[in-house]
Amino acid sequence: MKTEKSVSELSQSLGAAAEGDLERRISGVAPLESASRTDISFVESERNLRQAVASEAGCVLVPQGLQLPGKTVIRVRNPRYAFARVLELFFPRSAPRPGIHATVQIGRDVQLGSDVEVGPYAVIGDGAIIGSRCLIGAGCVIGEECVVGEDCTLYPRVTLYPRARLGSRVILHSGCVIGSDGFGYAFEAGRYHKFPQIGTVEIGDDVEIGANSTVDRGALGATRVGAGTKIDNLVQVGHNVQIGSNCAIASLTGISGSAIIEDFVVIAGQVGIGDHARVQKGAVLGGQCGILPRKTVRAGQTVWGTPARPIKDYLAQQALVARLSKKDKRVVNGE
Amino acid sequence: MKTEKSVSELSQSLGAAAEGDLERRISGVAPLESASRTDISFVESERNLRQAVASEAGCVLVPQGLQLPGKTVIRVRNPRYAFARVLELFFPRSAPRPGIHATVQIGRDVQLGSDVEVGPYAVIGDGAIIGSRCLIGAGCVIGEECVVGEDCTLYPRVTLYPRARLGSRVILHSGCVIGSDGFGYAFEAGRYHKFPQIGTVEIGDDVEIGANSTVDRGALGATRVGAGTKIDNLVQVGHNVQIGSNCAIASLTGISGSAIIEDFVVIAGQVGIGDHARVQKGAVLGGQCGILPRKTVRAGQTVWGTPARPIKDYLAQQALVARLSKKDKRVVNGE
Amino acid sequence: MKTEKSVSELSQSLGAAAEGDLERRISGVAPLESASRTDISFVESERNLRQAVASEAGCVLVPQGLQLPGKTVIRVRNPRYAFARVLELFFPRSAPRPGIHATVQIGRDVQLGSDVEVGPYAVIGDGAIIGSRCLIGAGCVIGEECVVGEDCTLYPRVTLYPRARLGSRVILHSGCVIGSDGFGYAFEAGRYHKFPQIGTVEIGDDVEIGANSTVDRGALGATRVGAGTKIDNLVQVGHNVQIGSNCAIASLTGISGSAIIEDFVVIAGQVGIGDHARVQKGAVLGGQCGILPRKTVRAGQTVWGTPARPIKDYLAQQALVARLSKKDKRVVNGE
Repeated sequence: MKTEKSVSELSQSLGAAAEGDLERRISGVAPLESASRTDISFVESERNLRQAVASEAGCVLVPQGLQLPGKTVIRVRNPRYAFARVLELFFPRSAPRPGIHATVQIGRDVQLGSDVEVGPYAVIGDGAIIGSRCLIGAGCVIGEECVVGEDCTLYPRVTLYPRARLGSRVILHSGCVIGSDGFGYAFEAGRYHKFPQIGTVEIGDDVEIGANSTVDRGALGATRVGAGTKIDNLVQVGHNVQIGSNCAIASLTGISGSAIIEDFVVIAGQVGIGDHARVQKGAVLGGQCGILPRKTVRAGQTVWGTPARPIKDYLAQQALVARLSKKDKRVVNGE
Repeated sequence: MKTEKSVSELSQSLGAAAEGDLERRISGVAPLESASRTDISFVESERNLRQAVASEAGCVLVPQGLQLPGKTVIRVRNPRYAFARVLELFFPRSAPRPGIHATVQIGRDVQLGSDVEVGPYAVIGDGAIIGSRCLIGAGCVIGEECVVGEDCTLYPRVTLYPRARLGSRVILHSGCVIGSDGFGYAFEAGRYHKFPQIGTVEIGDDVEIGANSTVDRGALGATRVGAGTKIDNLVQVGHNVQIGSNCAIASLTGISGSAIIEDFVVIAGQVGIGDHARVQKGAVLGGQCGILPRKTVRAGQTVWGTPARPIKDYLAQQALVARLSKKDKRVVNGE
Repeated sequence: MKTEKSVSELSQSLGAAAEGDLERRISGVAPLESASRTDISFVESERNLRQAVASEAGCVLVPQGLQLPGKTVIRVRNPRYAFARVLELFFPRSAPRPGIHATVQIGRDVQLGSDVEVGPYAVIGDGAIIGSRCLIGAGCVIGEECVVGEDCTLYPRVTLYPRARLGSRVILHSGCVIGSDGFGYAFEAGRYHKFPQIGTVEIGDDVEIGANSTVDRGALGATRVGAGTKIDNLVQVGHNVQIGSNCAIASLTGISGSAIIEDFVVIAGQVGIGDHARVQKGAVLGGQCGILPRKTVRAGQTVWGTPARPIKDYLAQQALVARLSKKDKRVVNGE
C-alpha cells in the first residue's frame, strides 16, 4: 500500500532536474523540521535556508537559484506547488465509491449524473441536477432546482437553498450554507419588514468554501463567486455580492451586500467590507481592516486599518503616534 | 403561472397614486440598472435620480417629492417598503405543504399544531410544542420541551437545545444553534471548571436569525431576543444577553455575556460588545467597533472605534493623526 | 423530584464553614438580584457587596474576608467555583440513556465502548472508535477512523472529518466541524492549486468547543488543542495550530495556520492571530486585537490593538490622540 519512489522518478514526474543521489528511495513527505532520510520536503526561499541545511530530509525541492551543498535536491520553479504535486503522488484522493445510500431522500424530476456518491440521510429536492462524479456527504440538504456541476465535493451537512447553482469541481466544507436569505428589510411604521430575497447564487468552477461559511442569495439578481476563488472557514458573503475569479478570502471576513471584489484580490482574516464597496483587481486587504460602504480600493493597492488606507500611510501613522506617546510620557515624567 | 398586473392595479394594491401610463402591463421586478419595460423598480432618494432617469423600468416607485419627467411612477411614502410589498405580489411565499415526513423522529408528549410541515430526518424531542403552520426543515433537531410559536420557519439543519422558546413568525436560517451552553467557567486549582449552564433562551415574535448564528442559553435565567429584532449570519449572542425589540445586528458581531441591548439599536458588522455592557435605545454601533465590558452607550448615540467613542470624536482623531503624519513625513524628508 | 438541602448539608458538601441559620432549607440557585429566601447565591468580591447586602438570598457563598452582617453565609476560597459545585448538586447532569438509535448508520470495524448513547440519524464511519459513556447527538457525522475518548458529549450535528482524535470528557457543541481542510494553496500559472491537507487533528482531554466553531486538520502533521482548553462559539482554528492546555478563547477569534498558543493563554473575542505567531504562556490578548504573522507575545503580557502592543502603550497612545484632538478642535475653533 505504501508508495515508494526514487528521486529520479519523482523528478521525472515533475519534469524537473535532480542533483545528488538520484537512486535514493523516498517513501514520505514532511516539513523540513521533522523530515527523515526517507522523506521529501521543500524550501521556498533563502529565508528558510538554514532550516533546509539542518534538515535530515532525503530530498528537498528547491527553487532555481538556491544552493544546498551536500543535499539531494530537485530544482523546480515553484517548490510549494511542486510539493503539492508530490503529495498527490503519495496520497492520491481516495477512490470514489459511487452509489446512492438507501436512506437518501430524492425528490421528483431529479437528474443524477454517472458515478455519483450520496451519503446517508442526504435530501435532494425536486428538480435538482447533480453532475457526474459528485460526492454529496451525509446529511446534506440540496434544495429544489439546485444545479451542481461535475466532480463537486460537498462534505457532510452542507445546505444549498433552492435554485443555488454550483460550477464544476466545487468543494464545499461541512456546515456551509449557500443561498440563505440576505439581510434586507424595509423599516416602516416602527418596525422592520422583510424585503423578499428572491434572487439566486452562482458559485463558479473550482471554487472552494470553508466549513460553516455562508453565502446569501441575491435580493434580486444573483450573488456570484467567480471561478477559482478560495474562501476560508466562517466567512460571510452578503446578498448580491460579486466576487471575481481567483481571489483568496481568509477566515471570519464579512462582505456586505452588493460589494464588488474583482479578480485576484487577496483578503486576510476578519476583514469587513461595507455595502456597495468595490475592491479592484489584485488589491490586498490587511487583516481586520475595514472598507467603508461605497468606497473603492484601487487595483493592486495594499490597504490596512479601519477605515482602510494605503498600508504605508497606516504604518506611518501608527509609528508617529507611538513616537509622540513615548515623548509625551517622558514629558509627563519630567525626563 | 406568471403574474401580470397593470400599473393601475399595483397602485391600488399599495393604496397610492400613479402618474403616467396607468394601463401599462408589469410582469416583473428589478433594480433600476437592469429593469426592462415590463418591470417595476424603485428609487429611494435624489441620490439615485440619474440612475432612475436612465432606467428602462416600465414603472418606478418614487417618494413624494421626487420628479421623474416622462416616466410612469407610483408615489409612495417609503419606496423600499412599497417595493417589498410588490415583490410579495409577484412572488408569493410558496404554499406550505403540511405533513410530517415519514422519517421524522417524534418524542413522547409532543404537541403539533395544525398544518405543520416537518421535513425528512428532523428530530423532535419529548415534550416539545410546535405551533400551527410551522415549517421545520430537513435535519432540524428540536430539543426536549422546546416551545415553537405559530407560523415559524426553521430552515434545514437548525438546532434548538432543550427548553428553548420561540415566539410566532420566527425565522431561523440553516445551521442556527439556539440554546447552546454559554462560555462560563470557574478557574480553580489550575484549571477551568464548567459553570453549569442551566438557564433558557427566549426568542420573541417576528425575530429572524441568519445562517450559522448562535444564541447561548442563560447560565441562570434567560437569554432574550426581543420581538422584531433581525440578526444576520454568523452572529454570536452570549449567555444572559438581553436584546430589545426591533434591533438590527449585522454579520459576525459578537455580544458577550449579560450585555443589554435596548430597543431599536442598529449594530453594523463585526462589532464586539463586552460583558455587562449596555447599549441604550436607538444607539448605532459602527462596523468593527468595540464596546468595553460594563460600559454604556447612550441612547441615540452613534459610536465607532475600539474602544468605541462618539463617531465625531473618532473621525476627528483619525483626521488629526493623518494630518500630523503627513507633516511628519515632510519634516523627515526635509521638505 | 425537587432537591432541598439545609445550609449545613451544603456547607458539608463543600467542605466549608457556614455562619447564621444552619438549618435553613435551600431549594434553588439564583444570582443575587433575583434570589429568593429559598435560594443560594454567591458574591465574588467587595465590588458586589452592596448587591449582596440587598439580596434576599437565603444563603450566600462568600470569600474568606468578606463580611455580610445578618446574612447566612458559607465561607469558601472561590465562591464562583463553589457555586458551580452547588449547581451540580441541584441540577445533576441528566442520566445517560445508553443505546444506539435504530436509525444510526454504523460502518465496518467500528468499536463502541460500554453505555454509549447515539441519537437518531448519526453516521459513524468505518474503523471509528467511540469510548465508553459517550453521548453522540442526533445527526452527528463521525468520519472514518476517528477516535473519541470516554465520557465525551457531541451535541447534535457535529462533524468529525476522518481520523480526528478526541481525548476524554471532550464537549463539542452543535454545528462544530473538526478536521476540515486547512486554507492552503500554491499559486501557479495564474491560479490557486490545492495543497493537499493530509494531516490530522488532536483534541485533548476536558476540552470544550462552542457551537459552529471550526478546527482545521494539519496540512502535514497535526493541529492540536491541549487538555482543559475552552473554546467559545464561532471560533476558527487553522491548520497546524498548536494550542496549549488550559487556555480560554472567546467567540469569533481566528487563529491562522501554524500559530502557537502556549498554556494558560486568555484570548478575548474577535482576536486575530497571524500565521506562525507565538503567544507565550499566560499572555492575555484584548478583544479585537491583532497579532501579526510570526510575531511573539511574551509570557504573561497583556496586549491590545492592531498590531497588538502592550496594553499600557495602547492606552497611552489612545489617550494622547484624544487629548491632541481636543486641543486641535479648540485651535480650529479659535478658542
